[in-house]
Amino acid sequence: MVIEYDGTNYAGWQIQPGRRNVQACLVDVLSTILNHPVNLRASGRTDAGVHALGQVANCKTTSSLPLPILFRALNANLPDDIRVINLLEAPFSFDARKDAKKKQYMYWIYCGSHFPVFLRHYVYCPGDFTINWPLLRECVQLFVGTHDFTSFSASGSSAVNMIREISRFEAKDYGSGFLAFTVEGNGFLYKMVRLLLGEIWMVQIGKKRIDDLRWALKHHQREKNRLCLPPHGLYLTRVNYPDLDPFQGVPDPAFPFQPSLF
Amino acid sequence: MVIEYDGTNYAGWQIQPGRRNVQACLVDVLSTILNHPVNLRASGRTDAGVHALGQVANCKTTSSLPLPILFRALNANLPDDIRVINLLEAPFSFDARKDAKKKQYMYWIYCGSHFPVFLRHYVYCPGDFTINWPLLRECVQLFVGTHDFTSFSASGSSAVNMIREISRFEAKDYGSGFLAFTVEGNGFLYKMVRLLLGEIWMVQIGKKRIDDLRWALKHHQREKNRLCLPPHGLYLTRVNYPDLDPFQGVPDPAFPFQPSLF
Repeated sequence: MVIEYDGTNYAGWQIQPGRRNVQACLVDVLSTILNHPVNLRASGRTDAGVHALGQVANCKTTSSLPLPILFRALNANLPDDIRVINLLEAPFSFDARKDAKKKQYMYWIYCGSHFPVFLRHYVYCPGDFTINWPLLRECVQLFVGTHDFTSFSASGSSAVNMIREISRFEAKDYGSGFLAFTVEGNGFLYKMVRLLLGEIWMVQIGKKRIDDLRWALKHHQREKNRLCLPPHGLYLTRVNYPDLDPFQGVPDPAFPFQPSLF
Repeated sequence: MVIEYDGTNYAGWQIQPGRRNVQACLVDVLSTILNHPVNLRASGRTDAGVHALGQVANCKTTSSLPLPILFRALNANLPDDIRVINLLEAPFSFDARKDAKKKQYMYWIYCGSHFPVFLRHYVYCPGDFTINWPLLRECVQLFVGTHDFTSFSASGSSAVNMIREISRFEAKDYGSGFLAFTVEGNGFLYKMVRLLLGEIWMVQIGKKRIDDLRWALKHHQREKNRLCLPPHGLYLTRVNYPDLDPFQGVPDPAFPFQPSLF
């Protein structure tokens, strides 16, 4: 299944006792409808406050409910900030986490002068600021390729191999103060996207030099003086699998708001 | 001042003891900055959950703070779901309520099949439905002109004169299941916009005939079987004054979201 959610009111994807999370909401509804316990596997966790336009998850079931019926029943019973946007049958061995070959995230920033009240949970708004675009593009390009990303990861994860490949990293100007980053890779370490963007932002605001980023990429150590951008600008937009396209029929991921209006 | 607010977390504009309201937030911040008690007059109330892209309010002050300083100080101290988007000096006799000559509201509906999780507080989503556009246009046209709108008002208001003039009432198709109504008039009775739209919607869904609307407009009585559309689709977008344009330099009111993406 492909899932869209507004992460504002959740402590992230992962089941955590006593804290509202997306996974538990889905498992509750699924197990009620399917009438058996459900082990729901997602492509990966998202942190508290992070949104998804294209999280992918799977479970096994003995139910013979037709997919369209299950699809409607799920959405009729989920809270209104979680929606299943696609549901399909996968090969029995499919595993949304292990089989994921590529993930895509977007991060939205508004740095104009008119603070958008309706977007406060959906866009990072650091205040009125003029982007140095050549410098920004030089920064994102630094990270494309296969690197040890220890310097851009947070502790608290069980990851042992810190090498990841970023196949695409772009920044796009949407006008009126809006910009978005798109980053694709074979996997991301804990808080890696927000730390990469935080360090790139530090260079924009003059608190670091691009050489500091080069240094960090070469020397694999977690500095104290790092910036992690807030979660509410971040969207998990796509997960790719080699033998299955869960996004068939789903429109391309795009920002839910109208940058031209601000 | 022109004010934009997300009404989701407010019991409306008006000061009410014990309930979070927009007016009290503004009065608190204004009186602290101006260092004297403030009597803040708005063009009118908005109900709980109703949004504003262009509420207008005024107050008198003895402070000599320059406007740009006051403007920045206000926005730096207001909660992040309320923003002053324009601030100007008005003639001493200006009264945002009494002087208002025309008000404009917009109402947004999504009736496509993909429930937009990020818009759940900002658009009315009655479910998958195909609009009968000729019928819809015929319905809105019924109300243009000067009428006694008793049948389309809620009790609980102190209004005595129930006659209002609607100078513009339009429905526009934004594609992908989104539509918006724009209604302009010299004033609106309590819940009048949402009741007008509710009755028009009843005709769309086949629960009433257009003749029932004609009858209601002629006979001035409040029926029991009326539909009042929910507040979260409604935006106060503009207020016009004869001798002052509070919207100078403010972009045209427009929907903050991107209908094309759903």
